Amino acid sequence: MSHGKQFTLYALKAGPNAWKIVFLLNELGLSYETIYLDFMKGELKAPEYLKINPNGRVPALVDHKNGDLTVWESGAILLYLAEKYDTEKKYFATSEADRFAILQWLFFQVSGQGRVVRFAHFHPEKLPSAIERYQNEIRRVLGVLESILSKQEWLAAGKLTIADLSFSSWNNELGGIAGPGFDFEKEFPATFKWHQRILAVPGVKAGVALKKELNGY
Amino acid sequence: MSHGKQFTLYALKAGPNAWKIVFLLNELGLSYETIYLDFMKGELKAPEYLKINPNGRVPALVDHKNGDLTVWESGAILLYLAEKYDTEKKYFATSEADRFAILQWLFFQVSGQGRVVRFAHFHPEKLPSAIERYQNEIRRVLGVLESILSKQEWLAAGKLTIADLSFSSWNNELGGIAGPGFDFEKEFPATFKWHQRILAVPGVKAGVALKKELNGY
Repeated sequence: MSHGKQFTLYALKAGPNAWKIVFLLNELGLSYETIYLDFMKGELKAPEYLKINPNGRVPALVDHKNGDLTVWESGAILLYLAEKYDTEKKYFATSEADRFAILQWLFFQVSGQGRVVRFAHFHPEKLPSAIERYQNEIRRVLGVLESILSKQEWLAAGKLTIADLSFSSWNNELGGIAGPGFDFEKEFPATFKWHQRILAVPGVKAGVALKKELNGY
Repeated sequence: MSHGKQFTLYALKAGPNAWKIVFLLNELGLSYETIYLDFMKGELKAPEYLKINPNGRVPALVDHKNGDLTVWESGAILLYLAEKYDTEKKYFATSEADRFAILQWLFFQVSGQGRVVRFAHFHPEKLPSAIERYQNEIRRVLGVLESILSKQEWLAAGKLTIADLSFSSWNNELGGIAGPGFDFEKEFPATFKWHQRILAVPGVKAGVALKKELNGY
């Protein structure tokens, strides 16, 4: 790659999923060039991109220092970076119990939260009962988090990990999708505080600021 | 546990997610006792079960030979079993490239297929346009699989892995959810053949037969 950085990250300017990866890359101090694809121009479904990710979604990450190894699916990418480049396991763990506690929360984020919010975003007909169902499911997921975070500061391993990071880019978008009258701080106080702690992490802060710069929100 | 087996698996008789775990436990020759929870009686949200899985879903697996370590989320459970008990990595891989190829398909299954089918099942209002959207998304996911499986026999690592197993319990239920006129074999021939190859695996075959016995379908 002519950009000379270790990674190429394929992303959308909007949407939460690629930003999780930005947060972790920033925190690990890894160098990357982001290529922003244009959803409206069909770049996600273009043959060149489908060679990188046959699912036609972002993020995808190419590691130029590892034979251009390509990983897609945000959960798999977080795990790749954590296993390979987080040598001190600052955002992951070495003990088996902690590793799998982190992994189960990571899988829960991508299957439980990720999909729901995607439907809330892209369901074209804006059907009230369907939207209500998504909003209920978003609150249910936050309720699960609250049941844990009211008793402990982080989801797993007693520290900030890739599990917490995976939720943060989605939780940042709750305002627009959780429905009128949603009050994150009041309804889920422990989860809100946890989210604020994550937002204060320098690599997250920088990512959120860049996202705002690119999207205006 | 008084049943004397290595694992306790919490499952629903119907629904696909716990059955993936059954398939792998069978193939690895591990001993387990399945506890079937009753969704209608609220057992998924009962305080005793929420102590095992705060998300109130199945599957969850307790490993009595590992200090009753509990793992929930089907993807995390498959990974736990593959890393810890598939010592020859028959259903996983040792090379980094293969491992992450398997992991990205596993994450794709739980985030891409799992959620969509859940909504198709449980959306109570049966809204035609919402249902149509789910059916389109199911076909899109099958199309992604077809783009790969028309060129190779398995998703990753050149063999049957936990990635393939994770799709099989869902693909078994396509008849009821992909909509009228759906013809799996005709529309996605390579994916259909792959699915048949998985169904012929002894541990899968036994799981599918038990599921039929329990549910009548």
